Amino acid sequence: MPAGTRSALRIIAGVAQTETETRLSPTGRVEAFSDGVMAIAITLLVLDLKVPPLQDVANGGLVMALLARWPSYVAYLAAFLTIGIIWLNHRTLVDRIARFDARLHWLNLMLLLGVATLPWPTSLVAEYVQRGGPDASAATALYGLMATVMALPWGFVWRHLADKPELLEPGYDAAYARAEWRRGFVGLPIYAIATLVALAWPLVALALYLGIAVLYAVTSQGVSVRTPSAFS
Amino acid sequence: MPAGTRSALRIIAGVAQTETETRLSPTGRVEAFSDGVMAIAITLLVLDLKVPPLQDVANGGLVMALLARWPSYVAYLAAFLTIGIIWLNHRTLVDRIARFDARLHWLNLMLLLGVATLPWPTSLVAEYVQRGGPDASAATALYGLMATVMALPWGFVWRHLADKPELLEPGYDAAYARAEWRRGFVGLPIYAIATLVALAWPLVALALYLGIAVLYAVTSQGVSVRTPSAFS
Amino acid sequence: MPAGTRSALRIIAGVAQTETETRLSPTGRVEAFSDGVMAIAITLLVLDLKVPPLQDVANGGLVMALLARWPSYVAYLAAFLTIGIIWLNHRTLVDRIARFDARLHWLNLMLLLGVATLPWPTSLVAEYVQRGGPDASAATALYGLMATVMALPWGFVWRHLADKPELLEPGYDAAYARAEWRRGFVGLPIYAIATLVALAWPLVALALYLGIAVLYAVTSQGVSVRTPSAFS
Amino acid sequence: MPAGTRSALRIIAGVAQTETETRLSPTGRVEAFSDGVMAIAITLLVLDLKVPPLQDVANGGLVMALLARWPSYVAYLAAFLTIGIIWLNHRTLVDRIARFDARLHWLNLMLLLGVATLPWPTSLVAEYVQRGGPDASAATALYGLMATVMALPWGFVWRHLADKPELLEPGYDAAYARAEWRRGFVGLPIYAIATLVALAWPLVALALYLGIAVLYAVTSQGVSVRTPSAFS
Repeated sequence: MPAGTRSALRIIAGVAQTETETRLSPTGRVEAFSDGVMAIAITLLVLDLKVPPLQDVANGGLVMALLARWPSYVAYLAAFLTIGIIWLNHRTLVDRIARFDARLHWLNLMLLLGVATLPWPTSLVAEYVQRGGPDASAATALYGLMATVMALPWGFVWRHLADKPELLEPGYDAAYARAEWRRGFVGLPIYAIATLVALAWPLVALALYLGIAVLYAVTSQGVSVRTPSAFS
Repeated sequence: MPAGTRSALRIIAGVAQTETETRLSPTGRVEAFSDGVMAIAITLLVLDLKVPPLQDVANGGLVMALLARWPSYVAYLAAFLTIGIIWLNHRTLVDRIARFDARLHWLNLMLLLGVATLPWPTSLVAEYVQRGGPDASAATALYGLMATVMALPWGFVWRHLADKPELLEPGYDAAYARAEWRRGFVGLPIYAIATLVALAWPLVALALYLGIAVLYAVTSQGVSVRTPSAFS
Repeated sequence: MPAGTRSALRIIAGVAQTETETRLSPTGRVEAFSDGVMAIAITLLVLDLKVPPLQDVANGGLVMALLARWPSYVAYLAAFLTIGIIWLNHRTLVDRIARFDARLHWLNLMLLLGVATLPWPTSLVAEYVQRGGPDASAATALYGLMATVMALPWGFVWRHLADKPELLEPGYDAAYARAEWRRGFVGLPIYAIATLVALAWPLVALALYLGIAVLYAVTSQGVSVRTPSAFS
Repeated sequence: MPAGTRSALRIIAGVAQTETETRLSPTGRVEAFSDGVMAIAITLLVLDLKVPPLQDVANGGLVMALLARWPSYVAYLAAFLTIGIIWLNHRTLVDRIARFDARLHWLNLMLLLGVATLPWPTSLVAEYVQRGGPDASAATALYGLMATVMALPWGFVWRHLADKPELLEPGYDAAYARAEWRRGFVGLPIYAIATLVALAWPLVALALYLGIAVLYAVTSQGVSVRTPSAFS
């Protein structure tokens, strides 16, 4: 964006433009806030494991009512593992970063927007997969779409770090950031394909979502936790 | 308040008045508690992205039912970005403060009251904008009113710091705090005008709320995060 | 409890009794966990500011529907300020403590049990005060009873610290802890009286709950935050 | 798993296999995230102390309606104390660990999965115990089953630490980890028996769940907090 346009926008937005130096922050509170958002999002998922209302369940019918909700358990596990993986990757990412500038703060906020929003498509899947048909497809495709979109900010973070390697911790340089940037998009097609699968076979897509997360958990045991491609 | 009245009130409230020195606290736990409240408020917003109940949606009608709830997505994004901006500003604010006295603690609690309450008007907007008419106006105006009121404690914080510059970190003085105080009220008229707009055109106001937040996000990229005017 | 009984109980509970030394912990994670619980409890209160369901509100009736729920706003403010005060006091308390032994951990857990439970009577008050009659009395009395009971663990914490002054930070001794213990019970009769008032005049009690919190906020401005009597 | 299979899986999962060294992390953010999840799970329990809807309670019937929900208070207390104990144990566990490798991260995530999920069976118990019959048995047995399963990752953590004692803090060795591993399974049969009891006498099982937690609280006062057997 040209500096002139930006200045004009900033005046409209009520942001004084006199202060133009890039102010940098240590990473401590970014971690605390990000950990908080991720810890809450992962724990709020449990609200989707609904308790069937007393009046909707005939006497002695609780076990069957609980079994009928099995897709919500699969969706819960997939989303829990996915946010868990994102947290591990976020930890690794922040370890590589020495300082946050304003753009990194905003990209981090976009990361957290994805994590904080994930309970919603999870809830949709939990509710609509058992109905089958176009609604089950819509719910599982929306979950996949969200997971695909969530992978984008990771790539932009690394592209920005490749442009400004001085924000990285010592030992990491622009070449490292560029390599991470390329790897950060490995996961995109996987979730994109799962989203397409969801349109035709929602249960297969649901299995894929869980499978991708479990697979990552299994393969990452004993090896290092990798940053952006890990989520994808 | 005269010291005599205050003493009398304090005795009624059961607060011993023998201890009169100002006890100061390091800022670590203030940050942790504030980060916690803001992280929870920003994550609770997702609960407004309601899942349409199974029995309310005809077979194959999920996509339409989700599309019909589009104002809730706009409100969600606006509120998410707003709390995100407040968090960035809070971080910057606390960076300037060396110690918290009791009044700063209470002003900070008022800041957090605003943040913690924001999910409620957001939820009102999400539910009532699609109805149109006076209810849509009431909901969006209440959101704007809340955003206006939320800007007040930021100003009071800086006024207090202008009175007691010894609470500031080295390098910041009363003149700096006074300048921030004045700038802290720049945002007030913007949200106040949006509130008035909401009375006549709720959808325009909703677009304004999102626009203000996005605009700030765009203009702040690459420049420093400014403290109180930033939110407004 | 005699050591023999305790050993027997411990074996039943599956707790090996071979390890008998008192292991002490630094206070960092106690603060983090306590801050987390208090930040969540204070933020969950917003869920009681219910959004009237679309189908229950006639066209144009939103403002009246919101005004009719005014007791829920009073209850929200009272509970928010109460938890805010408790947080300030907790911070001060932990500042005085150098190390936590197992009993302090448990008393702290009892403190947090009170804080975490407060959203429930708050929600009862929000829902039932407008009905009046015995149900309004029951809801407001339960809130008062809870506030009374919540004050108890603070006293026990100080009694334990008076017994084991070696757990205190340098500069604080058994005499200091005993003085805090006595002051910790100042607040008990205030909430106990408000509870009795609730049985006859629930709205008066509701005003008292808010008044006590606001009064404390007003009187504590500019003076130090005091620990247990502060809450009461 | 053979290295070849793992490599193949990793390629499918999009995880580059070129980076094979075990990267280790300091424990700070693990504690913050874990504390966050546990603090949220323990505070979300309050949502099960439902407020009876206004329209379901006849005038003057609130006290009776609240008393009728007594099993939900017992379940609330049992779950609150259980998560409280788990938190104390987790704190002790992490104190013994110097560094987390990827497997420890995953086992920790499994621990947190248990804690985050506990509000769900608690909610089931709160809702269905009062109905009696097979549904009360199913709800309480599910709670017991969950508590039994939740004890498993603790054992696996210690087994992994026995294999890799270099991850332990100085002063702890493989023999210590093996001893903790064995003790970690002491609690399993207790909850397993309570689960079986639930099938026949749900109220007895509910009393057992509370009793186990209270008993542990009583016996641990004044002695050290022990790690995995403590929970069980």
